[in-house]
Amino acid sequence: MAKIRVTVWGENLHEQSSESVKKVYPKGMHQCIADGLNEASDIKAITATLQQQEHGLTEKALANTDVLTWWGHIAHDQVKDEIVDRVQKRVLEGMGLIALHASFHSKIFRRLMGTTCNLGCWRITGEKERLWVCQPAHPIAKGIDRFIEIPHTEMYGEPFGIPVPEEQIFITWFEGGEVFRSGNVWRRGNGRIFYFEPGHETFPIYFQEEVKLVLKNAVRYVCQQSIWKDTIPMMITPEMTLEKLGKK
Amino acid sequence: MAKIRVTVWGENLHEQSSESVKKVYPKGMHQCIADGLNEASDIKAITATLQQQEHGLTEKALANTDVLTWWGHIAHDQVKDEIVDRVQKRVLEGMGLIALHASFHSKIFRRLMGTTCNLGCWRITGEKERLWVCQPAHPIAKGIDRFIEIPHTEMYGEPFGIPVPEEQIFITWFEGGEVFRSGNVWRRGNGRIFYFEPGHETFPIYFQEEVKLVLKNAVRYVCQQSIWKDTIPMMITPEMTLEKLGKK
Amino acid sequence: MAKIRVTVWGENLHEQSSESVKKVYPKGMHQCIADGLNEASDIKAITATLQQQEHGLTEKALANTDVLTWWGHIAHDQVKDEIVDRVQKRVLEGMGLIALHASFHSKIFRRLMGTTCNLGCWRITGEKERLWVCQPAHPIAKGIDRFIEIPHTEMYGEPFGIPVPEEQIFITWFEGGEVFRSGNVWRRGNGRIFYFEPGHETFPIYFQEEVKLVLKNAVRYVCQQSIWKDTIPMMITPEMTLEKLGKK
Amino acid sequence: MAKIRVTVWGENLHEQSSESVKKVYPKGMHQCIADGLNEASDIKAITATLQQQEHGLTEKALANTDVLTWWGHIAHDQVKDEIVDRVQKRVLEGMGLIALHASFHSKIFRRLMGTTCNLGCWRITGEKERLWVCQPAHPIAKGIDRFIEIPHTEMYGEPFGIPVPEEQIFITWFEGGEVFRSGNVWRRGNGRIFYFEPGHETFPIYFQEEVKLVLKNAVRYVCQQSIWKDTIPMMITPEMTLEKLGKK
Repeated sequence: MAKIRVTVWGENLHEQSSESVKKVYPKGMHQCIADGLNEASDIKAITATLQQQEHGLTEKALANTDVLTWWGHIAHDQVKDEIVDRVQKRVLEGMGLIALHASFHSKIFRRLMGTTCNLGCWRITGEKERLWVCQPAHPIAKGIDRFIEIPHTEMYGEPFGIPVPEEQIFITWFEGGEVFRSGNVWRRGNGRIFYFEPGHETFPIYFQEEVKLVLKNAVRYVCQQSIWKDTIPMMITPEMTLEKLGKK
Repeated sequence: MAKIRVTVWGENLHEQSSESVKKVYPKGMHQCIADGLNEASDIKAITATLQQQEHGLTEKALANTDVLTWWGHIAHDQVKDEIVDRVQKRVLEGMGLIALHASFHSKIFRRLMGTTCNLGCWRITGEKERLWVCQPAHPIAKGIDRFIEIPHTEMYGEPFGIPVPEEQIFITWFEGGEVFRSGNVWRRGNGRIFYFEPGHETFPIYFQEEVKLVLKNAVRYVCQQSIWKDTIPMMITPEMTLEKLGKK
Repeated sequence: MAKIRVTVWGENLHEQSSESVKKVYPKGMHQCIADGLNEASDIKAITATLQQQEHGLTEKALANTDVLTWWGHIAHDQVKDEIVDRVQKRVLEGMGLIALHASFHSKIFRRLMGTTCNLGCWRITGEKERLWVCQPAHPIAKGIDRFIEIPHTEMYGEPFGIPVPEEQIFITWFEGGEVFRSGNVWRRGNGRIFYFEPGHETFPIYFQEEVKLVLKNAVRYVCQQSIWKDTIPMMITPEMTLEKLGKK
Repeated sequence: MAKIRVTVWGENLHEQSSESVKKVYPKGMHQCIADGLNEASDIKAITATLQQQEHGLTEKALANTDVLTWWGHIAHDQVKDEIVDRVQKRVLEGMGLIALHASFHSKIFRRLMGTTCNLGCWRITGEKERLWVCQPAHPIAKGIDRFIEIPHTEMYGEPFGIPVPEEQIFITWFEGGEVFRSGNVWRRGNGRIFYFEPGHETFPIYFQEEVKLVLKNAVRYVCQQSIWKDTIPMMITPEMTLEKLGKK
């Protein structure tokens, strides 16, 4: 079977401007995420970044992507609308999308949700986080034992301004007193979308084994290589008459 | 109790350019819909159209609207993006939205759904349509006896490119052989959205008693006058510290 | 408008056998809950208990109930199946149901969910709980400011073996490190169901103002006085022929 | 990879008592369904019937079943409650369930839905049915071109007394004027459930190629061979203390 083709998109700004981030992610967060995915024999992950031509998301690049992961934070507005249109079109055609951490506020995630996707609150104190598994047999939670504990993290708190998730995989407990729907699945068109909350740039979260495992699982879950091209819902011309549809 | 303030928005183009439409809706479709709603003692409906300044949807107009109904068809692209932004913001704040007929392809409906909202097919032959009630006790179906029959209508066929409805009120049977999810509810932010399929411009559908009844019911259902203003999910500054949240 | 008729059902066993519970709830938990509801001018709450004839839930009693609240814990098995059948029938006809605390394992709640409704874990150490509001504008959260804090409570932990909630109102943070979907809405037949987690018998939780407020809000939300009797889905005999349905 | 182990359960009464049914399904409907599934190289289907010891659904038989298909009609009441308990337990553990045709009223399907599962109406006149695809890229619709047409069928009409489907694959158009949600997916516990409407005993529907294809697709979709046994949500003893859960 062909490998799942993943494009790991990164904003790639903190890594350039901040020494402390560079220290945690010397090759960039995108490369770290891609490296983790490439540990799996059924996945082939490459990277793309904001700074590249068309943000690295050309028509051709997306046509060859089964699953796109997205990490953005301080430059959501710099992502060109035409690229967002293009990505949305591909998701609706069946490409999987994994929105990571601060990408709750990315143009593409908000576009697909239709809502503000605002948080109730946030806080960066390096506190502890526990992602509890709500659906233990879900493919995305495969291999996770009751919860994932992240020793130092950024807090995101409810209310999270999203449509009610179609599948609730993880809910997070924060040491400081908040909760967050941290692993959620929705379907849009032919595509599946997974939002996953962990991943602040100053902590080595994407090096953590359980986080890498969830990302591999999620890639497999939102990937739908089998989607046949001619089934995308489309406007059909009025020439499709009663007779053509077999009216008696 | 204060009346529900409805703004009935109409594209108002067919009525100007087509003699046959003008004959069916001499005062315009928007006025016909508003007249029907105003039969109810708890509703106060006014109209707004594409041609007005800011399409009649100024900040002030929307601030004074509890429920917006939308009818558009051939000029979706002429609706300015800034007005769509404004309407979306108000829906997420809690204003109800009723998208009618060809508004499945309006900017505002697609914006809130996140999908193509494409149809599988359509056909205009004046055939018969039956909207079957799927949730007989739903407030939107109140007073409807099993189904609504519309003698002459335009056909819209599945697949309808929407996220799976959160509430399924009506499904339509078409004489020519198709089906359509014709009465669907979703929640987005604080707002409720109802899509209702009937309403082709060349047939007197908005004069039909059952259709008028459904629209009154739907206005009451998506209206949420009680929403208190300060509860809109919002980004809170990081100053909301552990201490402020009452950490032990 | 007629008052909402609520029947507050209580297992009424801890109150009889435990001095410490009797001290917290001298009139019984059911009476405390009913008293809280009766503070509202639009609600008329009475009580019924396990020990009564037919558990106090006769055909007549249920026919005169708009909303039933349920509190059970150690005697789920003593509830007769025929009474569970009767309550289920009434919920499907449109009676609202509020399942409280340990009633996650009651026969009636499991019957309506179709699942185990098991918890992942529990613990009684009198720790603190915070119920975070996930849908700030939801009628059930009306008047609640971001979260409810309960100083001493029993812990219930995810995974909670329920179908994915149709509306997610509250998620709880526990001091000891767990989370729980503590305020959830589902629809079954014509009825609405609200599960609300707080309410351990050894703590005065049902005397807390915010808890009383949520229960009043919830009664109003799951109540659907307007349901017209003849709309309950039913099997219709085959005599309903093509002709009767208006076949052309 | 191991084959998917399917048990095709049949009531097997019409086939014994009715000459006309025997003529259509000389080997029984269950055998016909199993034969269709066994055309697929990744599926191994066997049969079980009402008349067998424990209805052919012993603990061992179910332990060796990945997907159970169910066809019942006139003898739902003869299925023993203890067997229904056992099947429900297995579905919640992760066994897939496909409920066929009149099994909308089977004990097991109603048990998992929590509702009446009543129909609005039915009719047997041998009319035509079209199952329209609502989610063209869904794995269950793979290989189906817009709709399946069944030349002679029994009519089932809305309202269908089910919880709102989590995935809507097919909606049926009937020649006589009704619609029906004829292909629906729900999740319960670890299991997936697919209801599929076609299959009246007097018509050779289970010999039709598209119907056989949908059943094969559905078996693959509701099958979750990968479910690891120790993740089933369960009650954990209070000995799981704060310390054990890693409380700081």
